[in-house]
Amino acid sequence: MEDMNKASLTKLGWKVSTEPASVWIQCVKARYWKGRCFFSLFPRQNNSWGWKNILATRDLLKKNCCFKIGDGSTVDIWSDPWIPWKEGFMAKLELNNESIAMVGSLETNGLAAEILSENFDPTAIVAEPVPAEVLSNGDLGYGEGDENNNNNNNNDNKTQEKKREIVLGRNVHTTCLAVTEPEANDEFTGDKDAYMASVLARYRKTLLERTKYHLGYPYNLDFDYGALGQLQHFSINNLGDPFIESNYGVHSRQFEVGVLDWFARLWEIEKNDYWGYITNCGTEGNLHGILVGREVLPDGILYGSKESHYSVFKAARMYRMECVKVETLVSGEIDCADFKVKLLANKDKPAIINVNIGTTVKGAVDDLDLVIQTLEECGFTQDRFYIHCDGALFGLMMPFVKRAPKVSFKKPIGSVSVSGHKFVGCPMPCGVQITRLEHINVLSRNVEYLASRDATIMGSRNGHAPIFLWYTLNRKGYKGFQKEVQKCLRNAHYLKDRLLEAGISAMLNELSSTVVFERPLDEDFVRRWQLACQGNIAHVVVMPNVTIDKLNDFLNELVEKRSTWYQDGKVKPPCIAADVGTASCLCGLHK
Amino acid sequence: MEDMNKASLTKLGWKVSTEPASVWIQCVKARYWKGRCFFSLFPRQNNSWGWKNILATRDLLKKNCCFKIGDGSTVDIWSDPWIPWKEGFMAKLELNNESIAMVGSLETNGLAAEILSENFDPTAIVAEPVPAEVLSNGDLGYGEGDENNNNNNNNDNKTQEKKREIVLGRNVHTTCLAVTEPEANDEFTGDKDAYMASVLARYRKTLLERTKYHLGYPYNLDFDYGALGQLQHFSINNLGDPFIESNYGVHSRQFEVGVLDWFARLWEIEKNDYWGYITNCGTEGNLHGILVGREVLPDGILYGSKESHYSVFKAARMYRMECVKVETLVSGEIDCADFKVKLLANKDKPAIINVNIGTTVKGAVDDLDLVIQTLEECGFTQDRFYIHCDGALFGLMMPFVKRAPKVSFKKPIGSVSVSGHKFVGCPMPCGVQITRLEHINVLSRNVEYLASRDATIMGSRNGHAPIFLWYTLNRKGYKGFQKEVQKCLRNAHYLKDRLLEAGISAMLNELSSTVVFERPLDEDFVRRWQLACQGNIAHVVVMPNVTIDKLNDFLNELVEKRSTWYQDGKVKPPCIAADVGTASCLCGLHK
Repeated sequence: MEDMNKASLTKLGWKVSTEPASVWIQCVKARYWKGRCFFSLFPRQNNSWGWKNILATRDLLKKNCCFKIGDGSTVDIWSDPWIPWKEGFMAKLELNNESIAMVGSLETNGLAAEILSENFDPTAIVAEPVPAEVLSNGDLGYGEGDENNNNNNNNDNKTQEKKREIVLGRNVHTTCLAVTEPEANDEFTGDKDAYMASVLARYRKTLLERTKYHLGYPYNLDFDYGALGQLQHFSINNLGDPFIESNYGVHSRQFEVGVLDWFARLWEIEKNDYWGYITNCGTEGNLHGILVGREVLPDGILYGSKESHYSVFKAARMYRMECVKVETLVSGEIDCADFKVKLLANKDKPAIINVNIGTTVKGAVDDLDLVIQTLEECGFTQDRFYIHCDGALFGLMMPFVKRAPKVSFKKPIGSVSVSGHKFVGCPMPCGVQITRLEHINVLSRNVEYLASRDATIMGSRNGHAPIFLWYTLNRKGYKGFQKEVQKCLRNAHYLKDRLLEAGISAMLNELSSTVVFERPLDEDFVRRWQLACQGNIAHVVVMPNVTIDKLNDFLNELVEKRSTWYQDGKVKPPCIAADVGTASCLCGLHK
Repeated sequence: MEDMNKASLTKLGWKVSTEPASVWIQCVKARYWKGRCFFSLFPRQNNSWGWKNILATRDLLKKNCCFKIGDGSTVDIWSDPWIPWKEGFMAKLELNNESIAMVGSLETNGLAAEILSENFDPTAIVAEPVPAEVLSNGDLGYGEGDENNNNNNNNDNKTQEKKREIVLGRNVHTTCLAVTEPEANDEFTGDKDAYMASVLARYRKTLLERTKYHLGYPYNLDFDYGALGQLQHFSINNLGDPFIESNYGVHSRQFEVGVLDWFARLWEIEKNDYWGYITNCGTEGNLHGILVGREVLPDGILYGSKESHYSVFKAARMYRMECVKVETLVSGEIDCADFKVKLLANKDKPAIINVNIGTTVKGAVDDLDLVIQTLEECGFTQDRFYIHCDGALFGLMMPFVKRAPKVSFKKPIGSVSVSGHKFVGCPMPCGVQITRLEHINVLSRNVEYLASRDATIMGSRNGHAPIFLWYTLNRKGYKGFQKEVQKCLRNAHYLKDRLLEAGISAMLNELSSTVVFERPLDEDFVRRWQLACQGNIAHVVVMPNVTIDKLNDFLNELVEKRSTWYQDGKVKPPCIAADVGTASCLCGLHK
């Protein structure tokens, strides 16, 4: 019955679309069409039930019919693909990609010719949307992405190697998941959906495996944001300043400011005295802090210890700032004696200083108080220096550790940044940047487009990140973080002690959770445990998700493998005295 | 039975932890403890079933007992909070926050004193992790975040207003969702979970409502990434260069490069000739493109039409570049006559040009071919100019529109960027940046820490965004995007025609989907429909999720409200001839 209904309705639809001259159609046209094409009409709420049903048959009609070109008056024969009309010609409706695509194009163009308002150009849309594959030899070809990928693999000639010389590791082009054009019959076969589901399932398995063996990067992988899954359906964007609403309503500023207030309290600055935002990562925090410093002191020199994160030196280059690298102690901390020498050599210019609250490699914490004291001793008054604290990892840990130099806006610092995806844990990189409100006017500018001034670097900002942070901060609280800090410090000491017991050179800075040790000989082992390496050293950053069990697995494997690496005595374990001092080195020379 | 078992096991656990001298305990200690504290032991796989069960009672014990300080030998009385031990003293176990917190601290410190390795400082953790609230008067107080928020509301005195003078719109502090410290008894009462669930449910409802009424910003809100929800449990971070794997394994480079290849094909550049990455937003694309331009031509002057996105001028300031603003035509396109004058006035310096493929406000597309022709006419050879194409919105639409200036690397351009959250649609801002590989060596530097060079701006990058883009590109394909482009152009023409019919000044650039019209008088109306405004004009950007029905709702409401705004004749509709030309203006003077 339903099928019969559909069939007779479709027949009416077919009549409407093919017999423009019949009286019945003329009536319908006058009432509903108003000079537009049948296929472009939109059902209105007050249309009759019958007419709505006729309109509803259009999808079926479109799928199963094709346009007759006739005299070609609605088609641009120079630029549109067309099937020459001749007696007895019948478009084949087999699921042949090429003919379907051509018919599809005609249909699209035929439609466009009638439905658009009078000044819309019917030939506006290009005939063949799929761009030609750009091949190495400069010729154009219509190959599939996959095939071309394979070509590249087999085609390891010198020109290519030379061109991609930037590639140091494995070239991801060779393993990439090419985007492929859907086939016209995908909706019938389900092939594409099946392919994508299988890719995602495999990927998920890889992620599970890789998350399990992960020690080298300071990311807390222990989180459960299941409750926030419902928000993934929204395009949440915090445009511009977090404290000023823009007209774009789908934002999460109320969460963002809640998170910022929490950090402001941690770093001891009053709500009305600070400005900040949730950044995309620790690097953005550094870029922002150093930029604020440069705007406050335009001819200032940027100082940073040579073990600072590379984003500090990137900032100097981006911002065209003079930059002076300061030596470090063996712990990785800034060497204030050297700092003093360099300050005195540049007394005529203000100083912008990047202070590391946890260096990337050794987890060393620069002595903020000594830095300030050094500045004062060199005659720099507070209006002639600006301190940015790069607390990417430890900025959130140090406040809970007694002997650490306290990061506080009660001291003459300008800004502090911390990463959100590290100690807190977050599905994507993010960070928190806090600075003094008084400094921000130098950066901000009126952007009427957003009904908002914008002192951020990125303008558009991920609105999901603040909600992730807000969720975790609320659940754990300051006390919860303290417990996790304690756990990390304890486990880091456990790891260091066990390494030394096993005769492996290792160092752990006081109150740090980054354990530095001799670089494992085998790159596969390094990759398996995702260790970050530099020269002769590697490190493990003990995060809340790194349990004693995981450390034991790692230690057992390391000790076992290591006995094979060095068994014949030809290769010796590396000396890391230059990196961490002789006291922590157990190499042949120093043990 | 189970309860009885638990009770007797717990009794054993209690004995173990409190009677260190008994013979039985001495035996247990020798076997399992090896000099460590009972509460810090981790069960091993080869431990006996009985011992594992005793260890399992520790949670219960910890919850329901507190430490006796004794002679204080394990406690630092100067810095740790403590309950003086005296005859008959009993810690109350009522759910009183303060006493619980104190007992908790003691427990933590007592624990720390025994479990840590010999060189770990037992007083390392601060006694009171909750930082003092920083109040306006400089005093310290221990108030709840919420209360302080209310104080701020009530406390609208002049000092505060002056301090927060940057606040142009509504101060988000007053509506923010404060992060509150969990109560000690949250796990019993469930209050916190209930509070957070209710906040999120309310927020979700707001988002639904705001997503419904949304016309002013070019975000495609029509997406369904349900299939990707499973990936939210992972911390996916694409560190550094997309083409070089770093040791951090939880990345999505294989998706990222697939997406980049798709765009490279769209913009006609060979796989081995381009470099690019998925950015955090359109702004990062502009920042990167202009930075590459500056590195290639260090003394180049940055040219951009005055209707360029504000990030272009932000870049000039960040990068300390000389910047020349070029006039625009009434359509919003760059005025190449003025461009020529300004080029000729600065012939001695190379030119870095930002070309808009769709301006933010009017959706105007700069004529790329004319820009190149103008450069050549002024004697600029290809080694003396660099063109960055800001295709934030239309970069993905223009390739499918015939008459649009073609964006292609076959022309002498240096880079193209596009936003991913706009036409494609994505839960968070993101973008695509493509440049020539030959240019990237000037930016890249060796960063051994990541086993990767890093030519990106941000370093750490959201690994979820590439997967969202990959998913949509695969599903829609070039052909799917073409259909959506057509739909948007058609619906934009519909909107413009209806506005003009209703006597409302309106303009639509040829082949654009941004409809510019007179700014609605009522700010509530503007906010409700989330319109972006500038001076006398507002705009609607017709995205794939903007249906004719939605436009009809908008039009009906606008026409109805407008009749009340201007009914008494005292206020007249604004003249927008200066913005869009007299032809599109229907104000009293020009209609």
